[in-house]
Amino acid sequence: MRKKYTLSQLAQNLDVTIKGDANCLIEGVCTIQDAKPGCLAFLMNPLYKKYLSTTKASAVIVLEDDSKECNTNALICQNPYYIYTQMAAFFDDRPKPPAGVHPSAVIGLDCQIDPTASIGANCVINDNVCIDANAIIAPGCVIGEFSEIGENSRLDANVTLYHKIRIGKHVVIASGTVIGSDGFGIARHKGAWHKVPQLGRVIIEDYVEIGSNCSIDRGAIDDTVIEQGVKFDNLIQVGHNVRIGQNTAIAGCVGISGSTTIGKNCVVGGQSGFAGHITIADNVVVTGGTEVSKSIQEPGVYSSGLGGLVTNLERRKNTARFNRLETLYSRVKELEQALAEMTERK
Amino acid sequence: MRKKYTLSQLAQNLDVTIKGDANCLIEGVCTIQDAKPGCLAFLMNPLYKKYLSTTKASAVIVLEDDSKECNTNALICQNPYYIYTQMAAFFDDRPKPPAGVHPSAVIGLDCQIDPTASIGANCVINDNVCIDANAIIAPGCVIGEFSEIGENSRLDANVTLYHKIRIGKHVVIASGTVIGSDGFGIARHKGAWHKVPQLGRVIIEDYVEIGSNCSIDRGAIDDTVIEQGVKFDNLIQVGHNVRIGQNTAIAGCVGISGSTTIGKNCVVGGQSGFAGHITIADNVVVTGGTEVSKSIQEPGVYSSGLGGLVTNLERRKNTARFNRLETLYSRVKELEQALAEMTERK
Amino acid sequence: MRKKYTLSQLAQNLDVTIKGDANCLIEGVCTIQDAKPGCLAFLMNPLYKKYLSTTKASAVIVLEDDSKECNTNALICQNPYYIYTQMAAFFDDRPKPPAGVHPSAVIGLDCQIDPTASIGANCVINDNVCIDANAIIAPGCVIGEFSEIGENSRLDANVTLYHKIRIGKHVVIASGTVIGSDGFGIARHKGAWHKVPQLGRVIIEDYVEIGSNCSIDRGAIDDTVIEQGVKFDNLIQVGHNVRIGQNTAIAGCVGISGSTTIGKNCVVGGQSGFAGHITIADNVVVTGGTEVSKSIQEPGVYSSGLGGLVTNLERRKNTARFNRLETLYSRVKELEQALAEMTERK
Repeated sequence: MRKKYTLSQLAQNLDVTIKGDANCLIEGVCTIQDAKPGCLAFLMNPLYKKYLSTTKASAVIVLEDDSKECNTNALICQNPYYIYTQMAAFFDDRPKPPAGVHPSAVIGLDCQIDPTASIGANCVINDNVCIDANAIIAPGCVIGEFSEIGENSRLDANVTLYHKIRIGKHVVIASGTVIGSDGFGIARHKGAWHKVPQLGRVIIEDYVEIGSNCSIDRGAIDDTVIEQGVKFDNLIQVGHNVRIGQNTAIAGCVGISGSTTIGKNCVVGGQSGFAGHITIADNVVVTGGTEVSKSIQEPGVYSSGLGGLVTNLERRKNTARFNRLETLYSRVKELEQALAEMTERK
Repeated sequence: MRKKYTLSQLAQNLDVTIKGDANCLIEGVCTIQDAKPGCLAFLMNPLYKKYLSTTKASAVIVLEDDSKECNTNALICQNPYYIYTQMAAFFDDRPKPPAGVHPSAVIGLDCQIDPTASIGANCVINDNVCIDANAIIAPGCVIGEFSEIGENSRLDANVTLYHKIRIGKHVVIASGTVIGSDGFGIARHKGAWHKVPQLGRVIIEDYVEIGSNCSIDRGAIDDTVIEQGVKFDNLIQVGHNVRIGQNTAIAGCVGISGSTTIGKNCVVGGQSGFAGHITIADNVVVTGGTEVSKSIQEPGVYSSGLGGLVTNLERRKNTARFNRLETLYSRVKELEQALAEMTERK
Repeated sequence: MRKKYTLSQLAQNLDVTIKGDANCLIEGVCTIQDAKPGCLAFLMNPLYKKYLSTTKASAVIVLEDDSKECNTNALICQNPYYIYTQMAAFFDDRPKPPAGVHPSAVIGLDCQIDPTASIGANCVINDNVCIDANAIIAPGCVIGEFSEIGENSRLDANVTLYHKIRIGKHVVIASGTVIGSDGFGIARHKGAWHKVPQLGRVIIEDYVEIGSNCSIDRGAIDDTVIEQGVKFDNLIQVGHNVRIGQNTAIAGCVGISGSTTIGKNCVVGGQSGFAGHITIADNVVVTGGTEVSKSIQEPGVYSSGLGGLVTNLERRKNTARFNRLETLYSRVKELEQALAEMTERK
């Protein structure tokens, strides 16, 4: 049976004013447009305001201005999406694994594993690893020698950490992600490539969240650093010696080449790519699919290429038009000359 | 020793007419251009028709029209590529693991595992998982609590399923793929990002096939749904609350942002990217590398950007030409004015 | 305590001239700009030459021409970056696992595992696998039936090899990579897709290095082949029946569609994509983010699209300008006609 909470229980410790029945029982969350009695919704995006007066939700988290049109219990606050994150957490039924080391896990020598930490089935923890209080290492993870995992951090199933990786506190790393693989350093000599030893580490600071199937390479000489509060979506590639500043958020399938520095509070759209050895200022927004080919000094919103989704036929016409552009320049030049001659002759 | 089949054995139950020796023994498959005696080829792409009269294959699957030029045994049908899939299956030597649970697998409480299912070495099946008849869970998979896997489905080695994931019948999921990681939902509050609990599930319907190292996120509130017969290549990212319609095929490295709906029978080229919260109609084709930045209402073939692979020098010229475009508009405007003045003066 | 080496020990067997104190003790590596006493740096990129006269490094690997400005011990050679790779290897503290099979590993029937090879904890080695001398299979790897791994090759943790994969000597495969998943072959019949059995193998030749979370598909009929000395970054997708020529280097997030052949000594920038069934000559360079939509016959540097990172506002203007291009062509044509008429009239 699902657990139920009153609105006042949900609102406890939050900066929220309840308008309506504070004892109304809530047993789950829903969207405002597809709501059910007993459920809690939120309204943030103005596009969905039209559903507010008819929603079947038992309560809606709203801005004060929107609360007048709310036909059900309203939880009035200044940031409904944030308040939603706090209330929705009550209904998160993600299983919580028990503390302790599963008997099938293989633990190396000289490890320090806090008794409140959970080490799942078939994990392999190599020598000299340190795992702090309340950390969760889900089944199938492999953690390399001398790595450290801070308190309250969580590695989901089948995560791989290489040796000497430092994971801070309250970090989440989703399944399939690899931290600390060798950077792509190769030196050409007599026609063949030679591997450049990758001797640095990866430092993941506190409150970082990393999605599934990401690859974050260790530094070549110095370290790769993901600063506090950075958020990563899935399938993101981070080259060696990259540094990503505090609270920057990066969407899926982004690639960041080696030795690039991204500032604080940046937002990077999906499938963007960063050249190597460049520096991006704080507070930069990069739209999806952008090739960031050079450094960015000023905050702002940046893009590359041409916008516009079109039919393939239209694209082929566009390409043809573009390819005729050189001819157009010549034609305009000829026109200018002809006109100049005519004017002169007069 | 490789098993051999006569042409009539291979053709059994298929809508195929044998022209030639129905007892010809076949021991493998080959391409029509690089064929060997004892092997079976097929002809579908007209570019390869030139090899038909000289191929060394012992039999070729062909359209009726092409059969006249075939110098060897012909298997005449209406869809040679499809018929090839059925006949090639006889020669698939993918090892079939034995039914039963490997002693090294870790099985949680209250699981229902059909005795005909195969659970490989070092798998971790968490509590309350249900695995149906003839399902194959290859070594190293981790399956989260309350997940269900339908009959005849196959998870290759090192697949990760989170909790409450529902996999239909006859589904194939290749290695390294992660189903049910948290969607990328973050809310900004007082300068930092806060995780939005991801409470939905992932539903994978029957006959879906998913390649290796894909990431499919669970829904935030409602579910992420991959409908029946959808086919995925490798390294594909699917955000939370995405829905992909029946029999849509998606090539490698595609990224689909959250809350986007793709219709039925669509074909998506490699490295394409979809913005979030958009809707794509049925029967849409998207060419490779397209930025699908908005909804598509009509069937058709869509693209973005400019076509054309060129030398880097030429691209630099193109970029310069493009950057001078504003100037060109001004020059044409000036010409128009000058001409107007001249005409007036007369 | 870190191990120390004299400059003459580091230079042994290398084509290097020591200028300064050959007995100087080195205990690690550093960058030239952020150097510490006791450390070894190198200078290759002219941009960093300015640091040479003031670096705190105890020794710097330099070209002869640069050595005059070096204020510390100099290791003079013709290829400083290559010499660095050889010297830095002395300081690589990657843990070396012991030879032998970890008791938690599951080994199939009829495997041939050299006693000098290392099979890590919780590995699953299926039947009929052959692992040669000094190979390292890190924890959590799964290796399919009839696969072979050559001497001195290394599979990092949680690598998956399907059946019948052949890995040469001195190969490195990083964590999360999947070799031999089914190629994306589907045939349409009566409205649904049918899987094309993927019966080929993957052949990885000697000295190949593959990054983390890559996917390399097995061939449909013939094999997928990665030739000797090829180097891969992370998150790279290789379709079925691809062949990549010797010593080609490919950066992260690249996608290569099925049946494409890439020549020798090519260099491919990150996030590039290759269409299927095309052929790329030897010695081709493809810049990052390029759509390689057709075959390339000649060596050279290739790109696609338009360069230029701009503000999003500027991009929107560019897109608008581009969309007015057809009108501009008409206006120029009208000007030409008007001018022709005027000239005629005179």
